[in-house]
Amino acid sequence: EVSKDVDESFIETFLSEVDNLRIQDNLKELTKVPHMATTAGDEQTVQYMLKRWQDPESGLDQAWREEYKVYLSFPDPKNPNKVTVVSSLRVKCPTLASHPELPVSVSPSGEALHTVQEKEKNYTNSDQNDPDVVQPYAAYSPAGHVKGKLVYANQGKPSDYLHLNRTVDLRGTIAITRYGGAGRGAKAINAAPYGVVGVLVYTDPLDINDGLMSDVNETYPHSWYMPPSGVERGAFATNYGDPLTPYLAAKEETYRISPEDITGIPPIPIQPIGFGDAQRLICELGGDAAPDEWQGSFHCKYNYGGPGFKNTSTFKESDVQMNISNYGEVRNSSNVMGVIRGSVEPDRYVIYGNHRDSWVHGAIDPSSGTSVMLELSRVLGTKVKQGTWRPRRSIIFGSWGAEEFGLIGSAEYTEQYLPKLSQRTVAYINVDIAVFANATLRASGMPSVQNVIFQAAKQVDAPGVDSTSVYENWLKYSNRTSPEHGTIPRMGYLTGAGSDYAAFVHYLGITALDMSYTYDRSKTNARIYPAYHTAYDTFDYCSKYIDPGFLSHQAVARTAGNILIRMADSLVLPLNCSDYAESLEDYLKTAVSLYQEKLQTWNISMEPLQSAVANFRKAATQMDQMIHSSDLANETPLKVRKINDQLMLLDRAFLDPLAFPDKYAFRHVIWASSSAGKSTFPGLADAFASAESPGQPSAWGKVHYHLSVLSQAINSAADMLVEVI
Amino acid sequence: EVSKDVDESFIETFLSEVDNLRIQDNLKELTKVPHMATTAGDEQTVQYMLKRWQDPESGLDQAWREEYKVYLSFPDPKNPNKVTVVSSLRVKCPTLASHPELPVSVSPSGEALHTVQEKEKNYTNSDQNDPDVVQPYAAYSPAGHVKGKLVYANQGKPSDYLHLNRTVDLRGTIAITRYGGAGRGAKAINAAPYGVVGVLVYTDPLDINDGLMSDVNETYPHSWYMPPSGVERGAFATNYGDPLTPYLAAKEETYRISPEDITGIPPIPIQPIGFGDAQRLICELGGDAAPDEWQGSFHCKYNYGGPGFKNTSTFKESDVQMNISNYGEVRNSSNVMGVIRGSVEPDRYVIYGNHRDSWVHGAIDPSSGTSVMLELSRVLGTKVKQGTWRPRRSIIFGSWGAEEFGLIGSAEYTEQYLPKLSQRTVAYINVDIAVFANATLRASGMPSVQNVIFQAAKQVDAPGVDSTSVYENWLKYSNRTSPEHGTIPRMGYLTGAGSDYAAFVHYLGITALDMSYTYDRSKTNARIYPAYHTAYDTFDYCSKYIDPGFLSHQAVARTAGNILIRMADSLVLPLNCSDYAESLEDYLKTAVSLYQEKLQTWNISMEPLQSAVANFRKAATQMDQMIHSSDLANETPLKVRKINDQLMLLDRAFLDPLAFPDKYAFRHVIWASSSAGKSTFPGLADAFASAESPGQPSAWGKVHYHLSVLSQAINSAADMLVEVI
Ligand SMILES: [Ca+2]
Ligand SMILES: [Ca+2]
Ligand SMILES: [Zn+2]
Ligand SMILES: [Zn+2]
Ligand SMILES: [Zn+2]
Ligand SMILES: [Zn+2]
Repeated sequence: EVSKDVDESFIETFLSEVDNLRIQDNLKELTKVPHMATTAGDEQTVQYMLKRWQDPESGLDQAWREEYKVYLSFPDPKNPNKVTVVSSLRVKCPTLASHPELPVSVSPSGEALHTVQEKEKNYTNSDQNDPDVVQPYAAYSPAGHVKGKLVYANQGKPSDYLHLNRTVDLRGTIAITRYGGAGRGAKAINAAPYGVVGVLVYTDPLDINDGLMSDVNETYPHSWYMPPSGVERGAFATNYGDPLTPYLAAKEETYRISPEDITGIPPIPIQPIGFGDAQRLICELGGDAAPDEWQGSFHCKYNYGGPGFKNTSTFKESDVQMNISNYGEVRNSSNVMGVIRGSVEPDRYVIYGNHRDSWVHGAIDPSSGTSVMLELSRVLGTKVKQGTWRPRRSIIFGSWGAEEFGLIGSAEYTEQYLPKLSQRTVAYINVDIAVFANATLRASGMPSVQNVIFQAAKQVDAPGVDSTSVYENWLKYSNRTSPEHGTIPRMGYLTGAGSDYAAFVHYLGITALDMSYTYDRSKTNARIYPAYHTAYDTFDYCSKYIDPGFLSHQAVARTAGNILIRMADSLVLPLNCSDYAESLEDYLKTAVSLYQEKLQTWNISMEPLQSAVANFRKAATQMDQMIHSSDLANETPLKVRKINDQLMLLDRAFLDPLAFPDKYAFRHVIWASSSAGKSTFPGLADAFASAESPGQPSAWGKVHYHLSVLSQAINSAADMLVEVI
Repeated sequence: EVSKDVDESFIETFLSEVDNLRIQDNLKELTKVPHMATTAGDEQTVQYMLKRWQDPESGLDQAWREEYKVYLSFPDPKNPNKVTVVSSLRVKCPTLASHPELPVSVSPSGEALHTVQEKEKNYTNSDQNDPDVVQPYAAYSPAGHVKGKLVYANQGKPSDYLHLNRTVDLRGTIAITRYGGAGRGAKAINAAPYGVVGVLVYTDPLDINDGLMSDVNETYPHSWYMPPSGVERGAFATNYGDPLTPYLAAKEETYRISPEDITGIPPIPIQPIGFGDAQRLICELGGDAAPDEWQGSFHCKYNYGGPGFKNTSTFKESDVQMNISNYGEVRNSSNVMGVIRGSVEPDRYVIYGNHRDSWVHGAIDPSSGTSVMLELSRVLGTKVKQGTWRPRRSIIFGSWGAEEFGLIGSAEYTEQYLPKLSQRTVAYINVDIAVFANATLRASGMPSVQNVIFQAAKQVDAPGVDSTSVYENWLKYSNRTSPEHGTIPRMGYLTGAGSDYAAFVHYLGITALDMSYTYDRSKTNARIYPAYHTAYDTFDYCSKYIDPGFLSHQAVARTAGNILIRMADSLVLPLNCSDYAESLEDYLKTAVSLYQEKLQTWNISMEPLQSAVANFRKAATQMDQMIHSSDLANETPLKVRKINDQLMLLDRAFLDPLAFPDKYAFRHVIWASSSAGKSTFPGLADAFASAESPGQPSAWGKVHYHLSVLSQAINSAADMLVEVI
């Protein structure tokens, strides 16, 4: 039993039993009501998960909930957020002779020239009519009543405001921005230094609807496109995890910082609006025409704003008024956990997770992933229940709470259990949105999981394409040339904090992967599926436009489940360190070509980094040879365990808790987020960019520092792979 | 073979083969010449260690050196540090009518009223005459030429300067201080804010010589006591590790901070002097009499200083002049490593180490410990060579460099190999000074090693006491009552950074212990053996006064070697988590009695901490029961490994890299250093003390923070012990 390895026939059985219609049923159940984090609807999904996993028929050994007290942000239902256009014509003040130019509103208080829609329009079904649909808002935007002339600031990037401020005095203005290009919160954070007092954000039809706009026949319910009143909600916090309890699990009595001390949240009010309203506002703007790259799909010229509206507009001389009444509150959020105990190595964990909370009904985000998780846990649990299978290693399922507010449930979980998770976890598998679209698989992760993803994808049929595997289909849509493997599908890296893998990757240094089915990019340029975070992300939408028949869901469940089984059952962990070496070499090559020449002028050598990567490659090659030349099934269990520990703990060697003092809970020196936009080591890239910017002569020391951090981490990782003594 | 356990008959063989005369020979060889870090004498000991461990007869599988480029501090041999008394009578300036009160020295330049001895006096042997004896100095004291009136500041604690400053204006003064009470560097760091311009430090005969002073018949070579010219050298840096490369191994190209940015070193010149000179200076001081607690052994009243000397003194109106020419330099320091590969679990390490560098000949510190390490590695290696034994786990021997400058060699080693050491190391055993004196064993460590220390100590005969074990003898000298074990020897905790265990304990969270033979406290109050860090710490001194016959060395080698074998060979690791629980309960009891009442007034609950400790106790009890009720020799190897991993990694759960931002490389939240002087959780004690001090109303949040840090860490540790899933 100690030499138990993957049973290929078990995998075939698993694949055959994954049921698309059960996934559909799961989704129907999970999307009955809006289930925003910590609401009654959320509790309903908690109860459903518990019912499924605690059912003795489920085959899981245990399931339970874990609660955290976390700081969330909501609009005030009694005082809905309002965005209006109000006139502020400067007229002579008849009664105040000493203030002849005092601005006086020509419209009496409360009477606005235009009011932005407070909720999304209801179409074919009653889902959008549910009273629990939360009003579109920017979570963690401060409350505030601000008024100013409108300007158009493109995507709200630092460069956008810098550019705009050259033409328009931004002091006291309200900026309207498009989603994309910068993080949500960044659009307000970048604006504040210029004196902007409030920010609006909308999704331009160019970016989400391939330019289409009419809800008469073009947008949902006629297609998957976003209707004019659709609004992307979201968390506008930059850091992940509960904002009040950095690095501590948010339990009842845990020390909390004061809400005023939260960093990385908007300093000025910000509110998302639909493109119907945005069109109204933008097309009336005065001032010069914005550059071509700033133009969107509206049939008008996008101007900068005078600031404010053009003189020919009915909004002439009017202000935009934002009345934002968001409030923060500590609420009880739950993760639901389920476990199948490993038979041989119960102290090794494969964790599979997804969040449970949504902004509204959340059919695609996140319930598509939860439906998949429920189906694969059903198939595996049934085998355990029947006594025909039990994984070699333990499987932990996590249904995380409050992801939409900043990956809170998964982050608190990792904070609470850091030591045991980091010592025992083989891999974390994240499937959040299981299906964005029907075209092809998309996967991201550490390079070491590439091989097992490929292996699994080769064994699953691609939906809607005859006699083609998910792997072959993927290869057609997105590929690259690997020095070692030739042409292969292109995997992404988990460099950001886009879903619940973040705490596992960046805080714990656990090998992780994230996958889904996604778009044919020749057919759409939508930055994400158009109903994302809107009230239109419903079962109806999913079953009509995203995955009718749920065959893409099935393919994802099969692929992810296949990987899960291989992680849990393989005698030798299916983690390939030579593929890691290839990625490091790729990063190194970029770094040398971008930085070496300049660094030489500062007498900073890249040789230690080069030699560290060479050490890693050599150690990886030796490790691979050792694995392939050994008859491990007949070796002592401790010899296999030794190799598995080397592979499991490899990513931990890349952690440095001090490398990124300004990035909350980013410790993995290879995959941390970066603002430099280079495909290379993030700390090095950011330090170099900052040293090159004007007025930073002493910043070259930090570049040298990051080279040393990287070299030491990569050498440490190589040390993990070489013979243990 | 996978169920290989400790062989008690092998331990008996080991004990019988440890040879006191070979230890003596080792010591003779190691102390031939002064071997201060990175000098030619140090290289000689590197070569000797390599010769011993690389000898094919040694039985070690491998031995090598590891080099680091580290920043050390030395006096300038061409420009020796000078401390003189120089007259500065204020006389009318005959030529400068506009500066009638200009101070003018009555002695011509270079002619001093008194000059402090620049080196230690040579007595019976030529050891002190060796040209390589480094002049007494304070490593990391800045260079500088300062002059001022002398004051006496007791031990240089913050409270001492605060008190002194009430009577004497300290601006521009030179303070003379006694060793003890505060760290070396702290005596200068604490002084600077008062305007003190230089500090002298000496060892009062009260503190080291039980009051004896005369080298005619009382001090070495007539006894073990320090002669009047003896001076304790030392590192005056507060942090440990190479000062220029925090958290990075000090390799050739590693990023280095600028020497000006080093923190925790003296901001003003400081110099150690002998008590012969100190007596001369202190007994001439004017001003009021210092308090009784400040009085030492000199046959005079210790006054504060006027500032300066009394009017009846020949030093009347004179200044003390310090000419300090220390300089910093990056030097090549080596660790010497030796390895015996484990047969069953080569990927589990037991590390045994001691530093190799000394201040002068370093017979006791550190060569007594190195002599012991060489002897026990000889006995074990011989068995490996003979093919009669090989440990279950790997044994790593470390002969660290540059410990005297701040534990540099061991700290750099842990920085370089952090991931693999923290993942694989079962325990670190440190034996630095093996024998302070002949009376009794002294041991410190994590509570989990108490049991194996006791077990080993029971099997070794106490030197010089018939039919008594080291354990029974220890029990007589120092004991306590344990709720679980009754009366047992009292172990210490490794809360400071006194030797090379520091990086293992505080930075890596590795279970560690430190031991030696030590004093009969009824016979001496010496704060340490009197030749400590002086030129009198020689083979002659050791063999005459510390351990004639080397039987105490033998007892330490037997005890430490016995522990090493048990750590390396036991099927189940000899780490007792219930003894850990007892210590946590003890700390908790103290914390509750000291803090609870006050904390309630701030609405801060200690309940989470109490419940965490209770969780730990419960988990420890279950773990013990599981170990005792299982027939582990007949269990699968992976089940035993699972338990061993839980025990090995227990201490790692107590690490928090962010808990002590002001303490370099202190991450273990239970054993970190503390300035509060309470026998309880250090972060909590320090935060409480700081919150209670005047003007810190917002500091109670930090107390709450540390309670949360502790609760989370202790719960995490408990989680390590409970059933793994
Ligand atoms: Ca938290
Ligand atoms: Ca260092
Ligand atoms: Zn999601
Ligand atoms: Zn989302
Ligand atoms: Zn020492
Ligand atoms: Zn020492």
